[in-house]
Amino acid sequence: MDGMMQEQPLIVSGILTFAERWHPTVEIVSRTAEGSVHRYSYADLGVRSRQLASALQALGVAPGERVATLAWNGYRHLEAYYAVSGMGAVLHTVNPRLFPEQLDYIINHGEASIVLVDLSFVPLLDQLADKLSQIEHVVIMTDRAHMPSCKLANVHCYEELLDSGSRAFAWPELDERSASALCYTSGTTGNPKGVLYSHRSMVLHAFASQSPNSIGFSQRDTVLVVVPQFHVFAWGTSFSALMAGAKLVFPGQGMDGASVYQLLREEQCTVSLAVPTIWMMLMAHLESVDGDLPALDRVVIGGSACPEAMIRTFEERYGVKVLHAWGMTETGPLGTLNHLQPKHDALDADQQIAVKLKQGKPIYGVDLRIVGEDGEVLPHDGETFGRLQIKGHWICSGYYKLENDTSVDADGWFETGDVATIDADGYMQITDRTKDVIKSGGEWISSIELENIAVGHADIQEAAVIAIEHPKWDERPLVVAVRVAGSTINSVDLLAYIGRFVAKWQVPDAVEFVDELPHGATGKLNKLSLRQKFQGYKLPTAD
Amino acid sequence: MDGMMQEQPLIVSGILTFAERWHPTVEIVSRTAEGSVHRYSYADLGVRSRQLASALQALGVAPGERVATLAWNGYRHLEAYYAVSGMGAVLHTVNPRLFPEQLDYIINHGEASIVLVDLSFVPLLDQLADKLSQIEHVVIMTDRAHMPSCKLANVHCYEELLDSGSRAFAWPELDERSASALCYTSGTTGNPKGVLYSHRSMVLHAFASQSPNSIGFSQRDTVLVVVPQFHVFAWGTSFSALMAGAKLVFPGQGMDGASVYQLLREEQCTVSLAVPTIWMMLMAHLESVDGDLPALDRVVIGGSACPEAMIRTFEERYGVKVLHAWGMTETGPLGTLNHLQPKHDALDADQQIAVKLKQGKPIYGVDLRIVGEDGEVLPHDGETFGRLQIKGHWICSGYYKLENDTSVDADGWFETGDVATIDADGYMQITDRTKDVIKSGGEWISSIELENIAVGHADIQEAAVIAIEHPKWDERPLVVAVRVAGSTINSVDLLAYIGRFVAKWQVPDAVEFVDELPHGATGKLNKLSLRQKFQGYKLPTAD
Repeated sequence: MDGMMQEQPLIVSGILTFAERWHPTVEIVSRTAEGSVHRYSYADLGVRSRQLASALQALGVAPGERVATLAWNGYRHLEAYYAVSGMGAVLHTVNPRLFPEQLDYIINHGEASIVLVDLSFVPLLDQLADKLSQIEHVVIMTDRAHMPSCKLANVHCYEELLDSGSRAFAWPELDERSASALCYTSGTTGNPKGVLYSHRSMVLHAFASQSPNSIGFSQRDTVLVVVPQFHVFAWGTSFSALMAGAKLVFPGQGMDGASVYQLLREEQCTVSLAVPTIWMMLMAHLESVDGDLPALDRVVIGGSACPEAMIRTFEERYGVKVLHAWGMTETGPLGTLNHLQPKHDALDADQQIAVKLKQGKPIYGVDLRIVGEDGEVLPHDGETFGRLQIKGHWICSGYYKLENDTSVDADGWFETGDVATIDADGYMQITDRTKDVIKSGGEWISSIELENIAVGHADIQEAAVIAIEHPKWDERPLVVAVRVAGSTINSVDLLAYIGRFVAKWQVPDAVEFVDELPHGATGKLNKLSLRQKFQGYKLPTAD
Repeated sequence: MDGMMQEQPLIVSGILTFAERWHPTVEIVSRTAEGSVHRYSYADLGVRSRQLASALQALGVAPGERVATLAWNGYRHLEAYYAVSGMGAVLHTVNPRLFPEQLDYIINHGEASIVLVDLSFVPLLDQLADKLSQIEHVVIMTDRAHMPSCKLANVHCYEELLDSGSRAFAWPELDERSASALCYTSGTTGNPKGVLYSHRSMVLHAFASQSPNSIGFSQRDTVLVVVPQFHVFAWGTSFSALMAGAKLVFPGQGMDGASVYQLLREEQCTVSLAVPTIWMMLMAHLESVDGDLPALDRVVIGGSACPEAMIRTFEERYGVKVLHAWGMTETGPLGTLNHLQPKHDALDADQQIAVKLKQGKPIYGVDLRIVGEDGEVLPHDGETFGRLQIKGHWICSGYYKLENDTSVDADGWFETGDVATIDADGYMQITDRTKDVIKSGGEWISSIELENIAVGHADIQEAAVIAIEHPKWDERPLVVAVRVAGSTINSVDLLAYIGRFVAKWQVPDAVEFVDELPHGATGKLNKLSLRQKFQGYKLPTAD
């Protein structure tokens, strides 16, 4: 027997329609590529998104067709989000920070026929023009006065294109399972892989993201969206914050400490989202100007693990709550968020920090588990670590156009590639990447834990720990470290230091000092390259 | 093109499974019908709900079959919620406060084959036994030691039945559009009407209810659920609070001021939900014991309009935030909730109260509008009032087994039967019921507004305003009032008093004093009965 309730699809245009109708005057503030600060309202966003959708339709964009964007955070990018997904096409956000060959691969693999590009990325696109044969139109996200010259074909001015569209465009009532957006991951191995989101997954993710156990957006919030809109829709904020009626502030390309600080203060932002690197720059700036953050209530920190010092500084010095989060392109992205529970109130500050260093609990709508090498489900004891798997409403069921895809098992568990522990209260902590963990005599050793310890030594600037083949133990850890300028620390002293923090069998077998470590396009340590470099390395313990 | 995201149904058992897995130790505290206070955890709820589902299946309960409950708020009622909906049957909560003939009608119309009944309602059910021919099993929600004697057939003891069930029962993966629950409205005209909820509507309603613009439940909350579980699942709290991992406190039948106060204090509740009548009793008790409410953060007040004095007392005296809400059995129930926006912070206390007296803004997932007599859409100006209509994910599409159902129009708008204004910020305020509004010379006069003014006179204990036919104006208002004991106030003085607050054409044409006014089973004024009594009444202005 079916229920007798109204059936409406869970689609992205529903978020915009609600926002426009019930929060029409809420502001969207953007620092633009042209240099000025732009302000308008949800009502304006609604009108212009409909105009853009209408104009794209007139250009020939059909349902299901991919429309790529190469853009910083701003109101035009947001209009593109709603216009493209809302009209039934697929928003394909491209990360402009990737290497040109990756960009080229991603745009071609996604088969976008049209690309919307920020002024600052026109030279980049220009450079790739010859390789992007399937692109029929290029829309430069600026007005006529700022249109650059370029060798690209079929170039349109965004504002002129938009003006040609109808304000009366009506959003189609799409199937909620239809594709709404496409994002690519940039792994260190193989080609980037595409995640194809559905309208349903994005709306449910927004519902979950704005809940108090997650980010808790409300109509009383002002959100500084530092995490790029090309990173899984700014972690979904472009939908969740609008669903909640929160004021939005977009920094454009100004993500340095001074620019972030200025927007936090001038717009009285209550919440902001970014990776640790951004917050490092803000901390340094705050220190240099003796600044404070009176309006800021909380920050969401994800992308990589949040360091202890950052949590302490935000919370103890600036009175800002840290929400440590974890997720991936493949997971919506929000998977877990860290809020303390009432039982933690009784803990002292250090014990609370120990909890906050974990990536937190799954938000409603996803489920997590850790499994061992043979797939056996491991206990939630906070000690045992295993491969982290996730399933849920906004977790991918596979990659776009990828053959022999084994990322999701028969029971629907997606293999995250992370290694983690889960404690008795359900708090998950990432301890390593599956491919980086060192498998020594049947036991796993976390490379990340060893790296964190190594960089805790005052003489070590950066460190990577990789597995080296070992005749007896299968694998043993090698530290590859960069010394602080002027330091002469040696292997024996560094290993002795590490030995103060871990069990004897976890202490690495050797240290190699190098001048610098290799990094990928998004700034992450490239361990694949290191493993190649040290292939065949002979550990002193190998005999 | 479809997205490539995992597809899982939005079903009620998903809430329990998540709660049990990620918040296993969170407490559920219940004052029981047997007299004691019972405590257990989400993990216990999970195990017992599976046992109950298994036992009900063994009794022959099939998918889609209705299982009725006649019970106060408590853990066993919650188990019934999850067991019945979770196994694919339909939870049919019956309001035991209705008149016996309504109960009889509702249980028979719902065609439940089995009824779960609290100890205190066994005599009531006993009395109806002859009329409930389709009931095959009666389960008394107690243990063997407390089993009463009764003349009902096929009686089971809840705890014994539950013990016979398997803890390993697996929740079926239902279609999210299948029926999960059935509730009846108790209108003053005609037979009660059934609303048949779907799993999808209930899960989406829970998502929306726990958002910060709504009630904002989190794992840091302790929720005192005073609103009965037979009133649209305690306004959905049985699902939304569990989704959020909040501690639940159920008062059983103890809803007097002293009992509510005791639980608020002893369990350190942070949020509570109830109708104004309950809060009146709490206020009186607080006054008498010089009490305070240090842990209580907010109260949700709905069911009928929240009086100004109640908002002031809660906020100014006890430091508790009032969330004024509106909804109906047909609307999930949550339709609107009142939170101030940042712009309201600049208002003084009186101006803020004027906003708080409104029922608030629609929560994400529903849409509202007001229309005039001919269906024309009316402006959001805070002055114009019209018929309130609503549509959305958890709004009914019609009534269960009702022929010629005109409650929802072709565009999906459900006619609420309320008359309301909506202001420029989107705040809705109920001004009357459609059938009670007085249509005078093409203009509408709110009966509720006149009643509120009349009872503001110190000599008036209660007042009702109804429409009387008028040869010139079609309808004109008549006040039917009960004097305070000992008062001798007359019509002229009361009308003069009313004239101080409304335009001259809105002042009623006459007053009739009576000893008492008629009320329905749920305590609401029965205006239908009054209209019948005054049918043919001749107004002094009719000549």
